[in-house]
Amino acid sequence: MYVGVDVGGTKVLAVSTDADGVVVGSAQASTRGEHGTAQELEDAMSTAVAEVADGQPLTGVGVSVAGLVDVAADLVRFCTHLPWRQDPVRARLAERWQLPVVMENDANCAAVAEHAHGAAHGVDSFLLVTIGTGIGGAIVHDGMVLRGAGGMAGEFGHMRVQTDGRPCECGLVGCWEQYCSGNVLPRLTHAERPDLEDGPAVTAAAQAGDPVACAAFEQVGEWLGVGVAGLIAAFDPAMVVVGGGVSAVGDLLLDPARAAMIRSTYAAKHRRLPPLVPAMLGPQAGAIGAAYLARTAGVVPGQGPGDRAM
Amino acid sequence: MYVGVDVGGTKVLAVSTDADGVVVGSAQASTRGEHGTAQELEDAMSTAVAEVADGQPLTGVGVSVAGLVDVAADLVRFCTHLPWRQDPVRARLAERWQLPVVMENDANCAAVAEHAHGAAHGVDSFLLVTIGTGIGGAIVHDGMVLRGAGGMAGEFGHMRVQTDGRPCECGLVGCWEQYCSGNVLPRLTHAERPDLEDGPAVTAAAQAGDPVACAAFEQVGEWLGVGVAGLIAAFDPAMVVVGGGVSAVGDLLLDPARAAMIRSTYAAKHRRLPPLVPAMLGPQAGAIGAAYLARTAGVVPGQGPGDRAM
Repeated sequence: MYVGVDVGGTKVLAVSTDADGVVVGSAQASTRGEHGTAQELEDAMSTAVAEVADGQPLTGVGVSVAGLVDVAADLVRFCTHLPWRQDPVRARLAERWQLPVVMENDANCAAVAEHAHGAAHGVDSFLLVTIGTGIGGAIVHDGMVLRGAGGMAGEFGHMRVQTDGRPCECGLVGCWEQYCSGNVLPRLTHAERPDLEDGPAVTAAAQAGDPVACAAFEQVGEWLGVGVAGLIAAFDPAMVVVGGGVSAVGDLLLDPARAAMIRSTYAAKHRRLPPLVPAMLGPQAGAIGAAYLARTAGVVPGQGPGDRAM
Repeated sequence: MYVGVDVGGTKVLAVSTDADGVVVGSAQASTRGEHGTAQELEDAMSTAVAEVADGQPLTGVGVSVAGLVDVAADLVRFCTHLPWRQDPVRARLAERWQLPVVMENDANCAAVAEHAHGAAHGVDSFLLVTIGTGIGGAIVHDGMVLRGAGGMAGEFGHMRVQTDGRPCECGLVGCWEQYCSGNVLPRLTHAERPDLEDGPAVTAAAQAGDPVACAAFEQVGEWLGVGVAGLIAAFDPAMVVVGGGVSAVGDLLLDPARAAMIRSTYAAKHRRLPPLVPAMLGPQAGAIGAAYLARTAGVVPGQGPGDRAM
């Protein structure tokens, strides 16, 4: 039995999956994000893993982390909303649980899950763009996650799309996620609908057909398409998968994104444009991908699915 | 003996190299770009190859093409300044020359050359950005060129850096190369130095210390750094190599680019920024890389340099 644990800023989610990636059990625990200690966070993870295991012996655990995981150095480098800093977390958990543990950035885990069991099944070269409070992402090339030299590849949200643009929480200006994210939505609706206080509120209003909220998604969708067009120029992927909470509205976001992508992609007439498709595995994608990585971690490269995933 | 042939819009350059990539012979022929026929172009290539071979028997030829080479489909798809369209050029040349022929996009060939013999020797994950009349590029990951699903990866010059920005020859607006290329230089100097009519003229003036020309390189360098910062967010490369004619001015371009890159890269304090270095092989890089590809084309993957290059 393999378990995947997704560690985010507000909660820990543990799932067990069958060989097809279907979730057969899950457990959650709240956390205090960066205000808690590493000990508290790891206790919460242990509780969730034990609950989902429910007394059965485990073979391995995969951990999906909302932060910078340097797999090569076997360190968690930095997480905005978690207490780990330059910390050998994976090795400590393996010691604590007396189990093989693999650890990976959450967007990379989600990409692994969508490749193994979801929207990109059978597609070996694709990009994942996740739109939540900000934009995250992952690059899969030839069936393998491209992590980059320091494990930081896929931070698409901080590519500049506008000179002298909006200031970003990261300290830069004009970052893509300042125009295309859940945080942008209430800014766009505020004048006409000050009651819609955050991204989820605007999303719910759009799903109920509110025209102001729908117009906000139209704008965010256009920025999604323009940004994806730039990524296509750089990577020429076979598919672009859009995940994250904001993507739950589906075609309200993706239709304007597709139109803008077609208008804004270099040499669109001379190429096959990649399909822009919604992610299939929802908020559990990170945990499912982590479980998949744990399951395939021991597989010999060239002889099974493990070599395809990482 | 292996020969590499670089096919550009105005000329064909053939080189022979030794095993260290040192050019031991070269020959050129003029072409009429997109105004000539495929037959004329291939005759010019044959003449240059025969001249550089100088009667010695050849073992293989590599061809570097300024255009879209779909290696998987074995077709030249499209070249702005060459007559080939959806054309099985490689197979036709192999038949004509009765030799093994490999063919690859010129930026990819230049990246292979810089990896094998140049600035990125020993660096397995890097980006090449070439600045000439426009911007081209290539992605090397784990020692292999990342071509993309349709062979079009690396077109960094057509990523949008400015909404409602300058119109680009490609039909889009705000493309990076409208702010950072040889074509931009005379636009920047025109008011004060209308006599500097093109990129090479501004380059020569800057190299002679002219302050107006130097200021133009300062601006173009800043745009280079900002764009590279976005590529770092996406790829997290171990190195960024800058080639192309405009890069011949060296630090006049690269110093402002480095400063802007440091200011504009996401999480610069939490990462090792990649060195931004000049290409080493100059205008012959494409031909040298093509010769390298011809030399290593038959090498069994995992057993020699061929698997590292492609």
